[in-house]
Amino acid sequence: MITPRTDHLIDLALEEDVAHGDLTSRAAFTDDHRSRAIIEAGHELIVSGAEVAARVFAKVDARMKVTSVAKEGTRLKRGGIALRVSGPTASILTAERTALNFLQRLSGIATLSRRFADAVMGTEVRVVDTRKTTPGFRALEKAAVAAGGCGNHRFDLGSGVLIKDNHIVACGGVKAAVTAAKARAPHPLRIEVEVTNLDELAEALDAGAEIVLLDNMTPAQVEVAAARAHGRGVLVEVSGGITLATIADYARAGADLISVGALTHSAPAVDIGLDVRA
Amino acid sequence: MITPRTDHLIDLALEEDVAHGDLTSRAAFTDDHRSRAIIEAGHELIVSGAEVAARVFAKVDARMKVTSVAKEGTRLKRGGIALRVSGPTASILTAERTALNFLQRLSGIATLSRRFADAVMGTEVRVVDTRKTTPGFRALEKAAVAAGGCGNHRFDLGSGVLIKDNHIVACGGVKAAVTAAKARAPHPLRIEVEVTNLDELAEALDAGAEIVLLDNMTPAQVEVAAARAHGRGVLVEVSGGITLATIADYARAGADLISVGALTHSAPAVDIGLDVRA
Amino acid sequence: MITPRTDHLIDLALEEDVAHGDLTSRAAFTDDHRSRAIIEAGHELIVSGAEVAARVFAKVDARMKVTSVAKEGTRLKRGGIALRVSGPTASILTAERTALNFLQRLSGIATLSRRFADAVMGTEVRVVDTRKTTPGFRALEKAAVAAGGCGNHRFDLGSGVLIKDNHIVACGGVKAAVTAAKARAPHPLRIEVEVTNLDELAEALDAGAEIVLLDNMTPAQVEVAAARAHGRGVLVEVSGGITLATIADYARAGADLISVGALTHSAPAVDIGLDVRA
Amino acid sequence: MITPRTDHLIDLALEEDVAHGDLTSRAAFTDDHRSRAIIEAGHELIVSGAEVAARVFAKVDARMKVTSVAKEGTRLKRGGIALRVSGPTASILTAERTALNFLQRLSGIATLSRRFADAVMGTEVRVVDTRKTTPGFRALEKAAVAAGGCGNHRFDLGSGVLIKDNHIVACGGVKAAVTAAKARAPHPLRIEVEVTNLDELAEALDAGAEIVLLDNMTPAQVEVAAARAHGRGVLVEVSGGITLATIADYARAGADLISVGALTHSAPAVDIGLDVRA
Amino acid sequence: MITPRTDHLIDLALEEDVAHGDLTSRAAFTDDHRSRAIIEAGHELIVSGAEVAARVFAKVDARMKVTSVAKEGTRLKRGGIALRVSGPTASILTAERTALNFLQRLSGIATLSRRFADAVMGTEVRVVDTRKTTPGFRALEKAAVAAGGCGNHRFDLGSGVLIKDNHIVACGGVKAAVTAAKARAPHPLRIEVEVTNLDELAEALDAGAEIVLLDNMTPAQVEVAAARAHGRGVLVEVSGGITLATIADYARAGADLISVGALTHSAPAVDIGLDVRA
Amino acid sequence: MITPRTDHLIDLALEEDVAHGDLTSRAAFTDDHRSRAIIEAGHELIVSGAEVAARVFAKVDARMKVTSVAKEGTRLKRGGIALRVSGPTASILTAERTALNFLQRLSGIATLSRRFADAVMGTEVRVVDTRKTTPGFRALEKAAVAAGGCGNHRFDLGSGVLIKDNHIVACGGVKAAVTAAKARAPHPLRIEVEVTNLDELAEALDAGAEIVLLDNMTPAQVEVAAARAHGRGVLVEVSGGITLATIADYARAGADLISVGALTHSAPAVDIGLDVRA
Repeated sequence: MITPRTDHLIDLALEEDVAHGDLTSRAAFTDDHRSRAIIEAGHELIVSGAEVAARVFAKVDARMKVTSVAKEGTRLKRGGIALRVSGPTASILTAERTALNFLQRLSGIATLSRRFADAVMGTEVRVVDTRKTTPGFRALEKAAVAAGGCGNHRFDLGSGVLIKDNHIVACGGVKAAVTAAKARAPHPLRIEVEVTNLDELAEALDAGAEIVLLDNMTPAQVEVAAARAHGRGVLVEVSGGITLATIADYARAGADLISVGALTHSAPAVDIGLDVRA
Repeated sequence: MITPRTDHLIDLALEEDVAHGDLTSRAAFTDDHRSRAIIEAGHELIVSGAEVAARVFAKVDARMKVTSVAKEGTRLKRGGIALRVSGPTASILTAERTALNFLQRLSGIATLSRRFADAVMGTEVRVVDTRKTTPGFRALEKAAVAAGGCGNHRFDLGSGVLIKDNHIVACGGVKAAVTAAKARAPHPLRIEVEVTNLDELAEALDAGAEIVLLDNMTPAQVEVAAARAHGRGVLVEVSGGITLATIADYARAGADLISVGALTHSAPAVDIGLDVRA
Repeated sequence: MITPRTDHLIDLALEEDVAHGDLTSRAAFTDDHRSRAIIEAGHELIVSGAEVAARVFAKVDARMKVTSVAKEGTRLKRGGIALRVSGPTASILTAERTALNFLQRLSGIATLSRRFADAVMGTEVRVVDTRKTTPGFRALEKAAVAAGGCGNHRFDLGSGVLIKDNHIVACGGVKAAVTAAKARAPHPLRIEVEVTNLDELAEALDAGAEIVLLDNMTPAQVEVAAARAHGRGVLVEVSGGITLATIADYARAGADLISVGALTHSAPAVDIGLDVRA
Repeated sequence: MITPRTDHLIDLALEEDVAHGDLTSRAAFTDDHRSRAIIEAGHELIVSGAEVAARVFAKVDARMKVTSVAKEGTRLKRGGIALRVSGPTASILTAERTALNFLQRLSGIATLSRRFADAVMGTEVRVVDTRKTTPGFRALEKAAVAAGGCGNHRFDLGSGVLIKDNHIVACGGVKAAVTAAKARAPHPLRIEVEVTNLDELAEALDAGAEIVLLDNMTPAQVEVAAARAHGRGVLVEVSGGITLATIADYARAGADLISVGALTHSAPAVDIGLDVRA
Repeated sequence: MITPRTDHLIDLALEEDVAHGDLTSRAAFTDDHRSRAIIEAGHELIVSGAEVAARVFAKVDARMKVTSVAKEGTRLKRGGIALRVSGPTASILTAERTALNFLQRLSGIATLSRRFADAVMGTEVRVVDTRKTTPGFRALEKAAVAAGGCGNHRFDLGSGVLIKDNHIVACGGVKAAVTAAKARAPHPLRIEVEVTNLDELAEALDAGAEIVLLDNMTPAQVEVAAARAHGRGVLVEVSGGITLATIADYARAGADLISVGALTHSAPAVDIGLDVRA
Repeated sequence: MITPRTDHLIDLALEEDVAHGDLTSRAAFTDDHRSRAIIEAGHELIVSGAEVAARVFAKVDARMKVTSVAKEGTRLKRGGIALRVSGPTASILTAERTALNFLQRLSGIATLSRRFADAVMGTEVRVVDTRKTTPGFRALEKAAVAAGGCGNHRFDLGSGVLIKDNHIVACGGVKAAVTAAKARAPHPLRIEVEVTNLDELAEALDAGAEIVLLDNMTPAQVEVAAARAHGRGVLVEVSGGITLATIADYARAGADLISVGALTHSAPAVDIGLDVRA
């Protein structure tokens, strides 16, 4: 489903590129000049966002036909096709850049997520995203992460409770913070507490934390901490600059979840282009 | 100026994170608990987007005071301060992630642009961006590029004419395409034509191109092509996978402009964080 | 915090009432005629929405001063004051109805919620709302429920998992549904399953349900079911036409949570009015 | 016609429920699992809003087919069908609550309006609504009132003039207020004046009022007042806490119109539900 | 009051002019270069829209100070001042054109309306506008007409009933149409019927029309028709290509109202400009 | 292409006219009463905006069929048809005025533009528009100008640089202003400088102006100035109160471009109407 907010984002994107028309394409093509076009991968990648790209074409020209759309998570080889469209040539070219701008970013996130998911393959760890997403793209980027085989952490500040140092200090300790959160949060939510060492971990467990987030610990520290948390039936998430090079160590250390901000904030765009075939 | 569209984007970003409130912060802090906070650099970087971040705080809570905002293009060392705010603690924490999500991306673009601009320092070349921007962020990302010392190419499909292969074929040759574009485009615009070899270059120059875009040529090829174009008083832009490693060679080859899509589509986020001080 | 969506809703409300101006007030008052006004309770009630009402006045006329706003959850006697404003008389009257329309509905929900919360006072049960809210008012109405002393169930379809009969059938049984949901849902979420008898309860517990929703059972049935669920460390929610007359029985039967759709879908408006004092 | 504003309201409603997707339904059903569903009455009721509900389904998934939609004002028995849809099962369940939230409220208003209209059946009185509507729902709720057989009072502050005490005081008397209003208001509008006793009535009639609103009078008082007003060719509206128990007395007393705020501000939701049939 | 819709229109106007910034002003002025500026009349005119123009400046830069704003309907001589602003010079110039575009159009309408109002001065006729307004500008243009001394006809299709030939035919005659409209329209509205000759007039009067619109009649015909309508206590409006040259004749013929579409659809812009004073 | 902004403008226009429905048409016609209708010219004119008008009908009622739409720039004789629609009669009449309001304005601009274009026929001059457009209508009105055979000047403040007196003073002379602009503006843009006499012209040419705008000069002065500018390879635009009576003289004087604000700010509406055929 393309929600109203995503629809809105597409409108913003078209406005910023086409508010005053496409001088080049309208000069080069008469309105009845038709073409077919494909969007194809420049290298191996995982597709995300093809449905959004399809909507971009449809918005530019209602006469456009989108005849195939790669499903979320499809793996394409170099030359693999993400989308096929046909319609007025000028409109295809007008829509091209906006459609690709969505696709190259979202597929970039899916592709990087796939690499992280593959890096822990065979373990029970789930790699998850964070709230470090592009403003306006939360739902799309979280879907791209899932398309790449990783999991989603909470979607927003209302669908999870994560108590950090800043919260604890003001509340007069972890216990007070956890208690206040349980009184306020919907009952389907587990309360998560961030800790940076074993003392804080003990405090969090005693306070009734239902998930602990181990921040910036070494794999060795995680191993000790995870054992203690699991002994209390508590889920263990780790975070803090974890890369493709180090993630397997953290997985082996007993984490249930590893959260990686880079999945969304620093995934490079994939190389994907449109090719017109008269 | 924060345009209505950017204002809108901030609204989308707040909605997607705070539509149902911030369970954690509202549990931890009473409404009259106040703090000061700074946003500081985790490593050396060029700031862009601090004004947008300031607007995020103001939107979350009208009682928020923003007491300093780093200007576009400011260079910060590790620990340098991009923003100072004070106000209700819960509101600071509610706004934190959205403000940082703008700042880390825009400053990431400015920081990468600075590296590209530095790489051609001392030459007369201008490194410019492309339309490969995040949907909805065209104006913000182009401003970030400028903050990093690079230049802007056309803003949208109405503020420049760039004739590519696809356009030429349908039009019956470069000459027809250039003529049609001149008849349609506002007179302040120079007509640009993309070419991939010297034959196409000759054709473009004969057709009356006012800028030529040399795509995917080697520096040696650019040197020959640029000399011919300059002999006709025509500006020379080069593009196609140019990196920090290769850009100096292209600059020396005589290009007037070098366009780099990666400035906006693949700049990694900078490390920048918020620190609350009760 | 008044989110962008609520701000938007206020705009819709003003447009539908004042798009073509307020003929009566503009005829009766010159622009410089000033007044003070209060909004006061017509009977005992719990206030919710006074901040929204204040925003309505501010939007109608930037010269308006709102000098006091009752906090969410304040109990007012007949004649108690929810809001004090002063400013141009015509603008006060233009804003009056829209401000009251928000206030009478939200305070109606808070007042009814208070009655339900009072009815289980002394037990450990939490009365919670549902998603049966007025379209566009989800956040405001859930806040009104909280202002009245009840709790909130999930805010939306992304902040909780609730598996019902319809879901189970298609999935090939409870176990498959619970497993699929756990694989997809963010880890902070507990999985809830709706059951209507003890057989279904047993199945849900075996499948790994973390919350069970007992639908349309009698208090006696709830007592048995709750004991079994608690024996597995599972939370118990009950629902289905529970009223002020019957809720205490359900509370005594061992429910942890009782959800009541009527809190939001059928709360009568409170009687609250504006009084101008020249 | 679903106006842009109503369309907007549907978008707000979907955003607040589905911005981050429907975790449960997407887990339980593959995208190609199809069903048929009906929306049926839980008790006898008058339908309003079925077209809006249909639009909700269409917005959630363009593949949805709505095969029947009950007309505004249709009377359904228990089990009667307001809507039939077919399409992807997950999408039906995603849309369900939002569609029902519109339908239960609007049909609630229509059903209550029908009871009021029936209570004065056989007289020439018209029961009408007020501006005490849910913010953003003015057009929908006024249509629901009409669907229930009652009439509409003015739609907004620009489509009617209603002079109350507050207006009169500032203007220096009824005569000045009526004159000012006639000079400003479009000529198709009759000027209405609110009065609370016979002295004020006399003053209003002398001032040129074209409609009088008798506020909070007893039926006996209305009888006297109405006779005087009718003697001057002036329409008579009565208001003020009139209920199903008392309305017939007011009708007999000679009122032309009886306005009832409760039609829109306190109508309980009807019981109406969705039933999936694989 | 600037309604949300007008605020929205200002946003559209700024977006279409400044979405990518103001290249010229930002190049010429540093951000701390300040100026004062006035907006002054190029010839005698009636001001309308100065408040909207002030809002434009405020939106472009929150540091802008607007120190005087001419009231709606003010008559300015050549050189008279409609607005004074001071603030960052670049921002003044960025806002200039958008502010003037509102002001020149709305003041153009007010100025033309003043000429029409003056042309019937001394008679009891009211010159009124129509719904032939610029899309999106209904409220602003109707206010401009009032600022020029003319009156407003109905604001929209919900605040008046005007039965034309097209309506009558389908309804089976005037009587059926009037009856149906009375049953549906809010009671404060008088029913208006368009007629083109005396036979139709007689029919309309018999059917219960409360206003008649005499379309495209000569002044002599109007004289006869008006007498008959007035004899039945019915208001008389005339329309159809009435100009400054012919309007006095129609006024003398006994019309109560003369509607003139040209007030809004063909008023030439006034000459009004901005002058910067460093 | 109807951009999101134009779509938005249509929504604003429908909201302001139909937010509360069309009382007259809904009273006169049942929902299944169907008609055909044409929109036809009342005098000879050039069509612009027929596609927008078609969209208006489609938005009012999805059952509407638009069977022919005159292309931009079509010349119609009196009685010529701009649009044919068929569908529910009430919906046709509801949409009528909004559709015509777009069409009469845009065709008015196209028709006036055609007269200006014809007045310089046979010369090489291009008549162009300005930024003096109706707020929100920039793209539509510039398209109407083009439909009438004239050209477009820059679309917005980001697609052209035009340095005026105000800019020059603050910058310390023309040279500084031109240099600053070239450093900032995208390279496809030529820098334009406004001059009012030959001294300023010399200064502008020396500073590197690429286009000069001769403001308020006589044809004789233009002749001298144009010769000098052309000698430097610089384009010459003239402006300042040029009318149909004087434009040929300016064309003969050697201008390349003549800009005329009246094309958009003072074009009278054309006479165009809708005719229903049962």
